[in-house]
Amino acid sequence: MAGVKLSSLPTIKRLPSYLHIIEAAQREGKEYISGTVIADELELEPIQVRKDLAITGIVGKPRIGFPVGELIDAITHFLDWHHNHRAVLIGAGNLGTALMGYSEFTRHGLTILAAFDVDTAKFDKSINDITVHPFDDIPKMIPELGVELAILTVPSDFAQQTAEILIQSGIKAIWNFTNVKLKVPSGIIVQKEDLSSGYAVLSVKMARSRS
Amino acid sequence: MAGVKLSSLPTIKRLPSYLHIIEAAQREGKEYISGTVIADELELEPIQVRKDLAITGIVGKPRIGFPVGELIDAITHFLDWHHNHRAVLIGAGNLGTALMGYSEFTRHGLTILAAFDVDTAKFDKSINDITVHPFDDIPKMIPELGVELAILTVPSDFAQQTAEILIQSGIKAIWNFTNVKLKVPSGIIVQKEDLSSGYAVLSVKMARSRS
Repeated sequence: MAGVKLSSLPTIKRLPSYLHIIEAAQREGKEYISGTVIADELELEPIQVRKDLAITGIVGKPRIGFPVGELIDAITHFLDWHHNHRAVLIGAGNLGTALMGYSEFTRHGLTILAAFDVDTAKFDKSINDITVHPFDDIPKMIPELGVELAILTVPSDFAQQTAEILIQSGIKAIWNFTNVKLKVPSGIIVQKEDLSSGYAVLSVKMARSRS
Repeated sequence: MAGVKLSSLPTIKRLPSYLHIIEAAQREGKEYISGTVIADELELEPIQVRKDLAITGIVGKPRIGFPVGELIDAITHFLDWHHNHRAVLIGAGNLGTALMGYSEFTRHGLTILAAFDVDTAKFDKSINDITVHPFDDIPKMIPELGVELAILTVPSDFAQQTAEILIQSGIKAIWNFTNVKLKVPSGIIVQKEDLSSGYAVLSVKMARSRS
C-alpha cells in the first residue's frame, strides 16, 4: 500500500476535480470558495467536500469558505503534483496516442519522455513531440532514462508479459489502461484505469430519468 | 439529478469494479465471495464494500459471503446494464477510435451505432464496424437513430458548440471526455470523464513509497 491509508483513496481520487474547480475560481479572481459551491458543481454532499479537503490541512472559515490560493497549493503538494513525474508510454495505438496529447497531465507535472511500440512503421516517428521507440529497446532505455512510471496501453493479451519486462527494467509503478488485472511483485504500484465507472453513473441516471 | 441520490454516486462508481471481480469469481466456479476478498482486490475497506453492495439489495451471509450469481444479477439490474444502451460517438480521433474498440462497453450493453467527424477523409469508413458520418449529418441522423446518449470526444475548443447541436438534435445524456465543463439545460445528463483521478492516486503512492 506504499504508506497510503485505504480510507484516503476515495478522497485522493476526488482531489483533482476539486483542484479543477478551485483553479477556475482563481482565474475568475475569487479569493475564497465555499465547500457548498464545490459540492454543487461535482454533485457531492457538502460534508463530503469539507471532510475531503481537511486531508490537505486547510480548514474553511464559516460563511467565507476556503482561501483559494492556499487551497490550490495544499492540494498540489498533497498530490505531489509540484514535482515532475517522468513516465514512458508502452503501446502507441489509439488510446496511447490520445494520452500523449492529454494536456491536463502536462499541467500537473507528468512528462512522457518516450513511447514504445512493436509496430515498425511507428519507429522514430514523433507523436506530440514524443518519439516512438522499438519495444525491444525497453530494457536498455528505461534504466538510461531513469524512469519509474510506465503508462500501459498495449492490447490486453500482451499486458502481463509487458508488465514483467517493465518491472525487470526498473519500473516501479504501472498505470494500467488494459482490462487485465496484472500480477506484480509486492512493492510495485499498479493503478488500473476503468472507464466503466462513468458509464455506470450515466446508465443509472438515464434509467432514473425515464422512470 | 434525475432521481439519483448524491450519496449514492460514489457507490455507483465502485459497482463496476465489484462486478468485474465477482464475474471473475464466477468463472472460477465459486458460489460465494466474501466482502473482504473484494475489498482486498480493490484496496477498499471491507465495511465500505458491504455498505456499497447493500444498495443492490443483496446481503452477505456471515462467514460465507455473498452469493455470486445473485450478486451479479443484482448489480447488473441496479446499473440498468441488463438493458441495451444505444449511443453515438462524436469525434473519431484517437480517443474516439480507442473507445469504439473498448469491448468492456459492449459487454455491458453499450452499443455505439454511429460515429461523426468533421474530417472528410474519415467519412463512410468503418472503425470496428462503426461507420463514420459527416458531422453535419448529426441533426438529421440522431432523431432517425432514436439515440439519447452521445459520447463526446471532440477537441475541447469544439465541445460546447457540439453539445448544443447534440441537445438540439434530441440527445438527453452526454458522456463528456473533453476537459470542458459543458453548460447544458436542466434535465440534460452530463457525465464528465477525468483521467486525473488515477494519476492522483499514482502520484501519492509513488511519493509515499519514496519517503
